[in-house]
Amino acid sequence: MTLTAAPLRLATTQPDFDARFTERLHWSAEQDDAIEGRVRDILADVRARGDAAVLEYTVRFDGLKVDSLSALELNAAELKAAFDALPVEQREALTQAAARIRRYHEWQKTQGGATATYRDEDGTLLGQKITPLDRVGIYVPGGKAAYPSSLLMNAIPAHVAGVQEIIMVVPTPVRGSVATGGTGDATATRGERNELVLAAAHVAGVTRAFTIGGAQAVAALAYGTASVPKVDKITGPGNAYVASAKKRVFGTVGIDMIAGPSEILVLADGSTRPDWVAMDLFSQAEHDELAQSILLCPDAAYIDAVQREINRLLLTLPRAEIIAKSLNGRGALIHTRSMEEACAISNRIAPEHLEVSSSEPHRWEPLLKHAGAIFLGAFTSESLGDYCAGPNHVLPTSGTARFSGPLSVYDFQKRSSLIEVSEQGAQQLGRIASVLAHGEGLQAHAGAAEMRLKR
Amino acid sequence: MTLTAAPLRLATTQPDFDARFTERLHWSAEQDDAIEGRVRDILADVRARGDAAVLEYTVRFDGLKVDSLSALELNAAELKAAFDALPVEQREALTQAAARIRRYHEWQKTQGGATATYRDEDGTLLGQKITPLDRVGIYVPGGKAAYPSSLLMNAIPAHVAGVQEIIMVVPTPVRGSVATGGTGDATATRGERNELVLAAAHVAGVTRAFTIGGAQAVAALAYGTASVPKVDKITGPGNAYVASAKKRVFGTVGIDMIAGPSEILVLADGSTRPDWVAMDLFSQAEHDELAQSILLCPDAAYIDAVQREINRLLLTLPRAEIIAKSLNGRGALIHTRSMEEACAISNRIAPEHLEVSSSEPHRWEPLLKHAGAIFLGAFTSESLGDYCAGPNHVLPTSGTARFSGPLSVYDFQKRSSLIEVSEQGAQQLGRIASVLAHGEGLQAHAGAAEMRLKR
Repeated sequence: MTLTAAPLRLATTQPDFDARFTERLHWSAEQDDAIEGRVRDILADVRARGDAAVLEYTVRFDGLKVDSLSALELNAAELKAAFDALPVEQREALTQAAARIRRYHEWQKTQGGATATYRDEDGTLLGQKITPLDRVGIYVPGGKAAYPSSLLMNAIPAHVAGVQEIIMVVPTPVRGSVATGGTGDATATRGERNELVLAAAHVAGVTRAFTIGGAQAVAALAYGTASVPKVDKITGPGNAYVASAKKRVFGTVGIDMIAGPSEILVLADGSTRPDWVAMDLFSQAEHDELAQSILLCPDAAYIDAVQREINRLLLTLPRAEIIAKSLNGRGALIHTRSMEEACAISNRIAPEHLEVSSSEPHRWEPLLKHAGAIFLGAFTSESLGDYCAGPNHVLPTSGTARFSGPLSVYDFQKRSSLIEVSEQGAQQLGRIASVLAHGEGLQAHAGAAEMRLKR
Repeated sequence: MTLTAAPLRLATTQPDFDARFTERLHWSAEQDDAIEGRVRDILADVRARGDAAVLEYTVRFDGLKVDSLSALELNAAELKAAFDALPVEQREALTQAAARIRRYHEWQKTQGGATATYRDEDGTLLGQKITPLDRVGIYVPGGKAAYPSSLLMNAIPAHVAGVQEIIMVVPTPVRGSVATGGTGDATATRGERNELVLAAAHVAGVTRAFTIGGAQAVAALAYGTASVPKVDKITGPGNAYVASAKKRVFGTVGIDMIAGPSEILVLADGSTRPDWVAMDLFSQAEHDELAQSILLCPDAAYIDAVQREINRLLLTLPRAEIIAKSLNGRGALIHTRSMEEACAISNRIAPEHLEVSSSEPHRWEPLLKHAGAIFLGAFTSESLGDYCAGPNHVLPTSGTARFSGPLSVYDFQKRSSLIEVSEQGAQQLGRIASVLAHGEGLQAHAGAAEMRLKR
């Protein structure tokens, strides 16, 4: 059977466009009761038994034959050794990407995040104090989805925010273990490590690193154990167990977001080379079969040209099978009446990645309200943003760009309000507070305000 | 039996201080499986059946005998009428509080939240675009905990952020209904409305208002029904059902936070009148029996004086019984070695409200790392902040000030990254991205970067 990739072809003029497009967009993060139940048990167990429970799950799921959690800690020298052992080209790419990511996030810090106050006319001081979190945990997936770029994108903003301790967890399952789909005989004292991930941890300035994963690692970070320090917030992607565990510990610690499948939406006016656009659609589709790649374009002939390039380029790629499944199952090439209509549809989708592949991207950008990241112009492929343009690649998926944004420096800071009411201010404010407190039936609130009034 | 209030008396020099204090602090938001199950069913039902399901639950729980959801919508004229009918003193207090809250949040908006970009040396443009959410839902509790101030604190930041549609839901249960602890015969077409809440909705500029509540109201806002528009984010406090529902729809929509019992921590150097401090401790304790009021002070004689004022003032208050239960069960008066030690203990607690009741509050403020709001000096009673100082009174509880802050304008905005790579920039970035993408096994990512390189 020849491998082909044919995204659903639609036109907004079709009478059934809305229904068919809605159906194609549909993706639901249904909660799996079985996973939820197992995660709840693992969290409770780690909370109760600490290190011993984490160790048992790591032996059972990752197939690691170790007898203490300290054997699962990687020290700074090991991270540095991983970096030093890389080919020079990879060392330089990691270092340059980190420098660009750091520079963007340092700029971002200046755009908000400074402690500031003002005084009103009666001398009352109001404002907010910005401080970094003390300690954060970064989850890094092991196995096939081990992305060193993810580590940079999570750890560098934390570092720039001023977080003092960055604790990384990354599972290193043994081949043949439960975590890798095997039966799980624990025989090795050391699992499969991804050297690029360890090198990235060195570059990003991770404080401590543990080779643990799954719900048990999330629990260790959220509750703390004898070996793993309790953190204030956990960020980073993971599988369904990790996502369920993060959602469950939300409130005990902060979390970043629950990510769905990755998405790209390309708005094209027909001026970009069609092979570039085809490859950009592929670069999202290659993540996994549920990833979604959509092209919106008012030029039907251009859409034909992109489809031809999809056909031509597909088999040049090692991940052609995943790409084909993703494009056939979830992709769409949509002929719109105009670029304006394309922008309106984009707002309805609120895509994670939005490429404005146009010769006049600044004409369309003001029309775009909801997106995780907006890539302007033909040279701005989404993959440049994934690695090294500077802005964060951790972005809201599944339409959550309607209410949230990229991971940022701000996620690793928090605000405290500052209020200093002057004696004079207490007279005016006290009277307002007293009336409203009595209206709410809270007489001690009223009393505290009234006591500060001059007799 | 005479009512007395005796918060636990501790000294940091006691050998068992840590253990006893930790025990007193303990509060756990255990999830109630029965509530979780019922909430899951209600959410699924509203998602499937929309208005009909919301209506059925409102009839069943709130005892309202109505046959369409439109009968549960309050129009702008009704909100205005509620405002117009208030005593002039309450009208003025609401208006002045709203003006002060608006002014603070307008200032806050200038401290972050502006779209900005910069270009690096190769012409690549980077930055972030800030836009308001389109539509938000505000949950306002009905019954005994109906606080108009909460509505101001939720709706005004949304308004200042630029949100176009603010949808309020507030249950108006009939006396004797299930929601008010009765048996639930639906006989009335109209439940108990809190006129101050409706007036506050008028002042705050709410767009639409529905008299629905509970998990069914959260579901209606999260999924949308024929009558209730789907929102992007839901904020506002509620009971255990509302909290569970909000946690469950998190991801479909944004939510603010899951609030625990209210807390106040007073750091006192002994310079504030002890009756003022006693009343400030009461003003948190009167919220509910689980609220926590703690005094930290290096002066034992001053602590004695505060305890005497507690004894003297307690019976002057209508809510004395709740205050006594809260102080006896969860309160603490702690003798510290020094103000420095008191600050360190405060950081460990990360309190929601932190009063620095000192003659030199700016000496201690820099030592305070974690708190929702910091009230400086003797005149700054927490109750002034609750109603009208300006900063938000929706604050992180249960130690979550370690990683989160007050509700803010920023909660009603979101960011999108902006990236425009120049042709020249694509050369440098493309080589870095290509190396890293190949390292991660993502060849289409590499391909998209490589295609933009000059041959």
